[in-house]
Amino acid sequence: MKNTDHIHMGHGSGGTLTQELIDQIILKHLNNPILAQKHDGALLPNIGQIAISTDSFVINPIFFKGGNIGSLAVHGTVNDVAMCGAIPQYLSLAFIIEEGLPLTDFEKVVQSISAAAQESGVQIVTGDTKVVEKNKGDKIFINTTGIGKLHPKSAILSSRIAVGDKILLNANIAQHGIAILSQREGLQFESDILSDSTNLNHLVSDLLDVFGPRIKLFRDPTRGGLGSVLHELASEIEMGIHIEEKRLPIDKQVAAACEMLGLDPLHVANEGVFLCVVAAEIANDVWQYMQNHPKGKNANIIGEICSSPASKVLLESLIGGHRLVSPLIGQQLPRIC
Amino acid sequence: MKNTDHIHMGHGSGGTLTQELIDQIILKHLNNPILAQKHDGALLPNIGQIAISTDSFVINPIFFKGGNIGSLAVHGTVNDVAMCGAIPQYLSLAFIIEEGLPLTDFEKVVQSISAAAQESGVQIVTGDTKVVEKNKGDKIFINTTGIGKLHPKSAILSSRIAVGDKILLNANIAQHGIAILSQREGLQFESDILSDSTNLNHLVSDLLDVFGPRIKLFRDPTRGGLGSVLHELASEIEMGIHIEEKRLPIDKQVAAACEMLGLDPLHVANEGVFLCVVAAEIANDVWQYMQNHPKGKNANIIGEICSSPASKVLLESLIGGHRLVSPLIGQQLPRIC
Repeated sequence: MKNTDHIHMGHGSGGTLTQELIDQIILKHLNNPILAQKHDGALLPNIGQIAISTDSFVINPIFFKGGNIGSLAVHGTVNDVAMCGAIPQYLSLAFIIEEGLPLTDFEKVVQSISAAAQESGVQIVTGDTKVVEKNKGDKIFINTTGIGKLHPKSAILSSRIAVGDKILLNANIAQHGIAILSQREGLQFESDILSDSTNLNHLVSDLLDVFGPRIKLFRDPTRGGLGSVLHELASEIEMGIHIEEKRLPIDKQVAAACEMLGLDPLHVANEGVFLCVVAAEIANDVWQYMQNHPKGKNANIIGEICSSPASKVLLESLIGGHRLVSPLIGQQLPRIC
Repeated sequence: MKNTDHIHMGHGSGGTLTQELIDQIILKHLNNPILAQKHDGALLPNIGQIAISTDSFVINPIFFKGGNIGSLAVHGTVNDVAMCGAIPQYLSLAFIIEEGLPLTDFEKVVQSISAAAQESGVQIVTGDTKVVEKNKGDKIFINTTGIGKLHPKSAILSSRIAVGDKILLNANIAQHGIAILSQREGLQFESDILSDSTNLNHLVSDLLDVFGPRIKLFRDPTRGGLGSVLHELASEIEMGIHIEEKRLPIDKQVAAACEMLGLDPLHVANEGVFLCVVAAEIANDVWQYMQNHPKGKNANIIGEICSSPASKVLLESLIGGHRLVSPLIGQQLPRIC
C-alpha cells in the first residue's frame, strides 16, 4: 500500500497531512466561502448570528485519567463553538457503537455527557444511535455538533490581527496528549497526569463581556498541538509569530514526560487550552483577568505578532536561541480525541 | 455474552431495541423537553425558528445501486430536517475513515456529497476528519448534522392530528433495504433494484407553500421501515391508524424480492419516502399535487387516523383480512444506513 494512494493514520493527525487531504480532496469538491475559512467552526450569517461546529471523537482508550470519550465529546465541540466568539447552546449527539460494548460502559459515557453538558450550559437536543459489528468499530465513537449564538460583543476575525498584538494562553499545554499516552497499551509509564479536558466557553464568554472587540481571536490547539495552530495562524495572517519558551505554561511532570518520550510539547494535544490574540494595551488586563478565573489560573502572555518572518512561528528557547516551529507532520499520537 | 448486558446489533435496528436503549439509558440521563420529543430532528425556538437533526451513516456496502454513503449522508439528514417542516440550509460533515481506504474511493464519496448537497440546496459549512486503524472501523463512516429554518407556513405537530385525517405516502416502499440486501456479501441475488435515496426537502417545501398548516405531520420511515414509524406515531397520538395494503405503493420486483426473502416490506428501510398526515378535505388535492411532482409520482393515500384500536396500527390485507402491524423487533438488516 503506497502512502499516496490510501488513507493512513497520518491523515487523521490534525497536522499537515490532514490539511493536504482537506485541500486536495474535500475543498476541491465542496468549496464555498464559509467552508474555505477552514476553521473548526463556521458562522452562519443568513440564519441569525449563529455558529456551528462538528467533531467526531474516536479516542482510545475511551476512559482515561481526567475524563472519558463522553465528557470529551461535549467539551471538544462546546470549545470549538466558543472559539468562534459564540455562546454554545445546543448539541446534537450521535453514537457509533461496536457490538459487545458493556451497557454499563455505555451508561457511564452517557452520564459523563450529561454532567459535562450541564456544566457547560448546553442542551443535547437531537441524537442518533448506530451499531456496527465486532472489529468494524472500536467500542464507541461519538459525534457532537454544536450550535450557539454569537456573543453580542464578539468581533473574532483573524484579519483584525495587527503587528504588536499579544498572544495569551489560558492553561498548561500538552496535558491531554501525555495523559492519554500514559494509558496506551504497551506505552504505560507511571504518571498521575490528568487530561485537561474541560469546557472553555464560560471563560471565553466572560472575556468577551469585559474586553469585547479588543479580543481579536480565540483558537484551541487540540490535535496537532500549539505548534500546529500557531503555524496555521501565521500562514493565515501572513505575519510572523514570536513566542518565548520560558513563558509557555507547562507542568513539570508533563515537561519531563515529553522529554523522556522524545515529544515536542508544542505538538502534543490539548483539550482545555486556548490561545487569545489581543491588542497590546489590554494584554496585561486580560492576563490578570484570566489568572483570577478557574479556567485560566496558569495563563500567560506567550508572545506577540511581528512583521517577520512572514507566515512563520519563531520560538526563543530557554537558553536564548531561536528556532522555527513547524506544524505537526505525519502522526504523533493517533486517536488522541 | 448476554443480550441484556452488552450492546448488540439489534440496538442499532431503529426498532424496539433501539427505543429501549434510548429510553432506558440515553433519556434517563439526558432528558429535556426538546430531546424527549424523540423525533429525528428538533426545533430550537430560543435561537430563531431553527430545526436541527443529526445522523451517522455506517452503511455497508459504501457503494450501492442508486447511490453511495456520501449521497445518502446528505439525503438522510436533509430529509430529517425537512420532516420538521423546515428548509434545510447548512450541513456539517464529519468523516471517520479506516486506514487503507483508497483515496479514489474517498474522492468518489466526496464528489457524491457535493452533488447531493447542490441538488438539495444545502451548503456544507464545517467538517472534521478522523482516521482509525485497520479493523477499528469499516472503510468510512459519515456524520452529517443539518440545520434549517422553519418554513413560514409550517405547523407540523403530531398533537394537531385528529380522527379522520388522511395518511399519504409519496413513493414506493422497501426499495432501499432490498437494493442494499441484493449487494450484501453472501446474499447476492439478481436484481436491478435501485435504492430510493433522494432528497425530499423540495417536495416538502412545495407542499407547505401550497397547503400550509393543513399539513399536520411529515415523517420519513428509514431504518425500521414504514411499520415502525406508523407504530411510533400511533403510540404518540394514542389513536388508531388504519392502512390498506392495496394502497401501499410498492414496485413489483421489490414485492417479489421481499416475498422471496421472507421480509415484510413494512419493516424494510426507505431513504426517499415520507408519510404525510393531512386534514381529510385536502387529501385528494395533496395526492394530485404529489403525483405531479418528480418526488411523488407513485404517491397514494394509504389510510387514515381512527379512534380505535388506540395506539395501534391495523392493516387491511389484499384479501380483506385485518392484522395489527408491529414495529420492527430486533434487527432485520444491519447497517442499512
